[in-house]
Amino acid sequence: MRNGKGTVILDKTPKRGFSTAEFRQRTAKAQVQMAKAGCAGLLLTSEHDVRYFTGFHTSFWQSPTRPWFVFVPSNGKPIAVIPEIGAELMRRSWIDDIRTWSAPSPKDDGITILKELLLPLSRKCARIGVPKGHETSLRMPLGDWECLLAALPGLKIYDATDIVQGLRMIKSAAEIEKLGHICRIGSKVFSEMQHIIHEGMPLEEVFRQFRLTAIGLGADDAPYVVGAADHQGYSDVISPPSRRPLQVGDVLMVDSGSTWDGYFCDFDRNWAIGHASDKARRAYDVLWRATEAGIAAAKPGNTCRDLFLAMSSIIAEMDDCGADIGRLGHGLGMQLTEQPSHAAFNETELKENMVLTIEPSLSYGDGLMMVHEENIVLGSTNAELLTARADLELPVVV
Amino acid sequence: MRNGKGTVILDKTPKRGFSTAEFRQRTAKAQVQMAKAGCAGLLLTSEHDVRYFTGFHTSFWQSPTRPWFVFVPSNGKPIAVIPEIGAELMRRSWIDDIRTWSAPSPKDDGITILKELLLPLSRKCARIGVPKGHETSLRMPLGDWECLLAALPGLKIYDATDIVQGLRMIKSAAEIEKLGHICRIGSKVFSEMQHIIHEGMPLEEVFRQFRLTAIGLGADDAPYVVGAADHQGYSDVISPPSRRPLQVGDVLMVDSGSTWDGYFCDFDRNWAIGHASDKARRAYDVLWRATEAGIAAAKPGNTCRDLFLAMSSIIAEMDDCGADIGRLGHGLGMQLTEQPSHAAFNETELKENMVLTIEPSLSYGDGLMMVHEENIVLGSTNAELLTARADLELPVVV
Repeated sequence: MRNGKGTVILDKTPKRGFSTAEFRQRTAKAQVQMAKAGCAGLLLTSEHDVRYFTGFHTSFWQSPTRPWFVFVPSNGKPIAVIPEIGAELMRRSWIDDIRTWSAPSPKDDGITILKELLLPLSRKCARIGVPKGHETSLRMPLGDWECLLAALPGLKIYDATDIVQGLRMIKSAAEIEKLGHICRIGSKVFSEMQHIIHEGMPLEEVFRQFRLTAIGLGADDAPYVVGAADHQGYSDVISPPSRRPLQVGDVLMVDSGSTWDGYFCDFDRNWAIGHASDKARRAYDVLWRATEAGIAAAKPGNTCRDLFLAMSSIIAEMDDCGADIGRLGHGLGMQLTEQPSHAAFNETELKENMVLTIEPSLSYGDGLMMVHEENIVLGSTNAELLTARADLELPVVV
Repeated sequence: MRNGKGTVILDKTPKRGFSTAEFRQRTAKAQVQMAKAGCAGLLLTSEHDVRYFTGFHTSFWQSPTRPWFVFVPSNGKPIAVIPEIGAELMRRSWIDDIRTWSAPSPKDDGITILKELLLPLSRKCARIGVPKGHETSLRMPLGDWECLLAALPGLKIYDATDIVQGLRMIKSAAEIEKLGHICRIGSKVFSEMQHIIHEGMPLEEVFRQFRLTAIGLGADDAPYVVGAADHQGYSDVISPPSRRPLQVGDVLMVDSGSTWDGYFCDFDRNWAIGHASDKARRAYDVLWRATEAGIAAAKPGNTCRDLFLAMSSIIAEMDDCGADIGRLGHGLGMQLTEQPSHAAFNETELKENMVLTIEPSLSYGDGLMMVHEENIVLGSTNAELLTARADLELPVVV
């Protein structure tokens, strides 16, 4: 909610989790796509894909020790093949068929159970979908994957990247509510940071204060905090913090991904310390207007390429190459970055209920670069901001 | 540092990063192992392996969009094949040969550069190492991996899991210093939590206070906070928090992994709210003594299996199956859990400078379980605690 002055009012906290109806719907939609692709099932191994179809939500994935599998058959509910340690939590989900083993078991970490599950399909020379394209990775040992394939010689593997990403790109009302909530928290954090940042504060302390403020204001966590500060501007946007104190003449940028109930916001803000150079002010103004152009172009029917070109045409006022970030924004959801990418190569059609970042960047000489970012949701005719829009001019803190 | 009363005094913050000498040594050690295995190089794709050999340290890996590669040749420095957005940060490392492309580029995300790099080895039918065993995964699209292999038909892939994990299991002095620092911070957090936790506090708020306290006391982040609280005890150890308020008669467990400069502590603590049942007290006592037995058995020359058996023999006083967690502790370092696993199947010899968790668990009826955990470093003859030892008896908070 915005009160018309660009400040954000924190709303009531939404409900955690999702209804069974929502998981049923996700599964049914996947099954429609699977039928079109001639797939007898989907085998999923990543945290996000497993969570998307089951609701299984735990930080335990941070341990690389155990693989977790979900098989979405062509009909009926997904089947979980998981370590026994997760059975109690999975039983609280909508999944009925939960097959477990005592993990870790390096010689057989779920492979025999998977083989038994998939052998009938292998005998029929069926095709199953596995995401193996852009932005995916197989979250199990490669050696185990090779063993599994060798034991199922009839099975045909179909690249199911588009099926899974295609579904995940379009958010449900409940997902949008969660994303809106964390974007509002993120906006409030940046608005507080304006009063916390000061000359002499080490960059490391800026990051620490950001995290404390985000968690204090209701984020579950702030796992992604990167940024930079340097004289007249910065040249890198993915670094961990140094202990260098902020100095008059610096431009500071903090980019952040905070989470609530497993959903991310992802946006950044810039500040000048004490005063700003004309060039930095101009870069900021160009990016502010490029963001406006991006938001205006973000409507159903346009493509990611259109969005990219709309931003690029403004960025070109100051920089005709663009900072080499490779794209000008992306999808947002359970991951800090999701499909689609706003890039010249991407003809993905924008659709209602996509949640996107609008993220123009530019280089403005002497190795300096600047980035801007907002988060939006697409309605039926136009985009709505989920973040409180950045100040019109590069804000100066003292 | 411990002051003899079980409380921890926070020491001076160590230096961030590592010396070039350390990266040189890691690389040289890998090259010795590669020579033994007849490998002409190692191809690495995971955040931890890339960081281990280069020092490249960024949260940017949280975005799944871009793959990152490091090739460790049989002689000389590692070669980075990375998206242009990381070039500036990689140039600050000890790596000279940095080959970049403008990513994302779904049709060719670094694959042409990798092909050029590896083609001479393929022509010689050389063998390169790729970690593909237990606790590893290939952090790049499976489809890209298949394309790469198809373009390099002479290349033989050797499972380099043991080479990389074998090196990473033995920590350097600088790594132990970082691990000690974050364990001291973690200990201080738990000691503060004792005063923060109270009847009526929702579990979600316990987690939030844990994170705030950890970051406030100097952790860079507290990415792993899980736990449970329920009447007389808990039955699950990997769940996100509920909003259920703590009640008299609950046993609360918080397990946590906080980080400093990319290194984790990983340990838990238990508390009874108001009062504890005799059974919960007894479970706690058994686990406290099992931990002692584990620490005593953790010495060079013994194996992980010895460590497991030492703990199991005490656990058997109350539970002869063990809670089905699959192991009783593990290695600790850049990841929340690393090799080795303390399990009956694991004959890995314990060595000086391993950093380990000692993590006995048991079931004590009615579906209830309890876990304990401490972090230790192995000296030449015995283990030293990195964490302030848990109270001798189940602490009661009101």
